[in-house]
Amino acid sequence: MTPPNDTAMPDFRPSERTRIKRLNQRAVFDRKTVYEILDAGLMCHVGYVIDGQPYVTPTAYWREGDRVYWHGSSASKMLRAVEKGIDVCFTVAHLDGLVLARSGFHSSINYRSIIALGVAEKITGEAEKTAALEAFSERLTPGRWAELRPIQKQELKATTVLSMKLEEVACKVRTGPPGDDEEDYALDVWAGVVPVGTAIGAAEDDPRLNPGIAQPGYLKQVKIG
Amino acid sequence: MTPPNDTAMPDFRPSERTRIKRLNQRAVFDRKTVYEILDAGLMCHVGYVIDGQPYVTPTAYWREGDRVYWHGSSASKMLRAVEKGIDVCFTVAHLDGLVLARSGFHSSINYRSIIALGVAEKITGEAEKTAALEAFSERLTPGRWAELRPIQKQELKATTVLSMKLEEVACKVRTGPPGDDEEDYALDVWAGVVPVGTAIGAAEDDPRLNPGIAQPGYLKQVKIG
Repeated sequence: MTPPNDTAMPDFRPSERTRIKRLNQRAVFDRKTVYEILDAGLMCHVGYVIDGQPYVTPTAYWREGDRVYWHGSSASKMLRAVEKGIDVCFTVAHLDGLVLARSGFHSSINYRSIIALGVAEKITGEAEKTAALEAFSERLTPGRWAELRPIQKQELKATTVLSMKLEEVACKVRTGPPGDDEEDYALDVWAGVVPVGTAIGAAEDDPRLNPGIAQPGYLKQVKIG
Repeated sequence: MTPPNDTAMPDFRPSERTRIKRLNQRAVFDRKTVYEILDAGLMCHVGYVIDGQPYVTPTAYWREGDRVYWHGSSASKMLRAVEKGIDVCFTVAHLDGLVLARSGFHSSINYRSIIALGVAEKITGEAEKTAALEAFSERLTPGRWAELRPIQKQELKATTVLSMKLEEVACKVRTGPPGDDEEDYALDVWAGVVPVGTAIGAAEDDPRLNPGIAQPGYLKQVKIG
């Protein structure tokens, strides 16, 4: 499954609900940026409402074309609620740095975030479900899917896969050094950025790994953040 | 402001809404674990509802005693909604690893997460607000607050600080190697864990830093994740 390269599609236009009201310079909506931010992440936060109470569930996700996907046990409270077609807020945020200004007030964080509003759809066909799960596996560890035993019918049945079209999307990004009050630049206090990123460690063999199985090359390609 | 060491308080008991229904072995609710997971993080995801639509806003947070805090511009849509006392879901999640099992079905992620339901309160007194902001600064960069110029009245006014008591809390943790189907352990496919963590980079001086200001020692103590 080759991810379509469709950043040539129109950029996202702010709706009444996704317009960034403050700090407008931090709001970007171009499709390429949105896709890059989504493709850099592994964990999203899905917001939904049950009996008036908001819930925010962290879960793994992936993107294909103009859709995001997430999945889990068919018994999951989140998935059972969201698959009914209720309103969802899908959020991804990457922390990129501490911005230490010369005042507490102008101290901030560097980050990239996507907030998408919409309604999720359940993927029902066995082939479509399998293809979606394969895409998720291949995005993280290209080549691994073919090494695994085929997914079984009852495993597919026990797995719910949802997808949501990216339509109402807000994207916020902050980069760069602090923006201090002009008179504060004279202060003799250190200011700058402490970068924060995601570290991928050396793969750890399963204690029950069969002897003679080397670590596959795709483990070195895992990239998140 | 010394953070109270109150892990001697009673542990969290699951409510109807926070009971972990599946994979019960992953649910832990002891106060010490909850506080450790919260103190390891910097970015939370706050869920709230406006006109029936759920929103999930990523924002910086901190913990003091049995409360979590977050803050921002008084003009923030999230803060203006949440300060009214509406129902909130406060979620923190740390991604700790990719769990690559011998089947796609048992592949998973290692993580630590906290989901807290409640209602936030606005901190109104100038002294209380300043103390809360100091606690946030000191949690990240101990000793820096005293180096900064004092926060100004109008800056305090332009900043909203909210706090929420930790009462209805769910905590989920997955650690360790894959749990494969017994017959799959015979397969000659690599399995194990790819650790994921947070990397703190070398601090970058502000391009406008006054000459002769060295990087303070507390920059080396920044720890997130």
